[in-house]
Amino acid sequence: MKIIIIGATGTLGAAVASSLEKEHEVIRASRKGNVQVDLSNPASIQAMYQSVQGIDAVISAAGEAKFGSIDSLTNEDFNLGLKSKLMRQINLVRYGRKHLKKGGVITLTTGILAHNPNPQVPMLTMINLGLEGFVESSAQDMPNHMRLNAVCPPMASETAEKMGWGPGGVPATEIAKYYVQSVESNVNGALIGPTHSD
Amino acid sequence: MKIIIIGATGTLGAAVASSLEKEHEVIRASRKGNVQVDLSNPASIQAMYQSVQGIDAVISAAGEAKFGSIDSLTNEDFNLGLKSKLMRQINLVRYGRKHLKKGGVITLTTGILAHNPNPQVPMLTMINLGLEGFVESSAQDMPNHMRLNAVCPPMASETAEKMGWGPGGVPATEIAKYYVQSVESNVNGALIGPTHSD
Repeated sequence: MKIIIIGATGTLGAAVASSLEKEHEVIRASRKGNVQVDLSNPASIQAMYQSVQGIDAVISAAGEAKFGSIDSLTNEDFNLGLKSKLMRQINLVRYGRKHLKKGGVITLTTGILAHNPNPQVPMLTMINLGLEGFVESSAQDMPNHMRLNAVCPPMASETAEKMGWGPGGVPATEIAKYYVQSVESNVNGALIGPTHSD
Repeated sequence: MKIIIIGATGTLGAAVASSLEKEHEVIRASRKGNVQVDLSNPASIQAMYQSVQGIDAVISAAGEAKFGSIDSLTNEDFNLGLKSKLMRQINLVRYGRKHLKKGGVITLTTGILAHNPNPQVPMLTMINLGLEGFVESSAQDMPNHMRLNAVCPPMASETAEKMGWGPGGVPATEIAKYYVQSVESNVNGALIGPTHSD
């Protein structure tokens, strides 16, 4: 399969790319590189899809949203979270569904905080749950036998260590298996991860 | 109690106001009227809270988001949905939590489509689920013994009739009982409606 990975420079995206390139052709799309995309610009997403023919799968492991309690978040923080983690991934679906090959699959990334409402992260819970609702709805409407899933990953142990949160989390190579499952299985509309039974 | 209702000119908001004013002081806030608020402007929300002292409860029955399948929704539709139904209600909480009286309660409105993913309404499912996540997180962090709930209303039969969707739905006066429950009970972080057991 020919697979585009967005966010392959991140901890999780890099592990997903490594796992998949054993068996598939993996293309790492980023702001700079052979295949370029600026996710903040819908036209750039469309251009990326037009520049690569015969795409079987797209994986998004990108998107930022700020941690922090409700009083610590500014208008800008909310705008960035909605534009970045939420709308950028939705736009990958909106345009990708017109370009992928028959039976292609798009996999987005939500996060385990969707199911662990916590006063320290109201925006992450909001965005991740919202994305899951989008996936569950839109998966029913994919053209050309395409599929749409979301991985709901736990905290990567590499990230926990980098952020100084001490030991904990799951190694990124283990989390990558959820993405491989989305790509290589035939599930559609699935929320894949340790908190889901899919 | 002194209760501000946003969206009291709508079908649902009007029924909620009628139900509550039997026992409480109800203030209808809108763009034009005695108590004015332009929900699209955070500064206007702050000004509303400052203009009314001693608020015990705020109810939001406002916010638009467009129906329609993923291909029918434009960038503008997504922006409007996120700004209107999602961020305007979140801003009512962000600023309200600094102004309500001790033990005050804020009640937002999501919608039954949060739990009925449907390819005709991906944005409504996304926004409603996101709002529920926000409420479940932020309710744990309300100051001064305040509470935060969301009503997840079914379709009002008045709306179904107006939209030409034929008979069906639940009378707005029946749905209003969920809002009364949020205000008069002591629940916090609850998602109240026919699809929730809260």
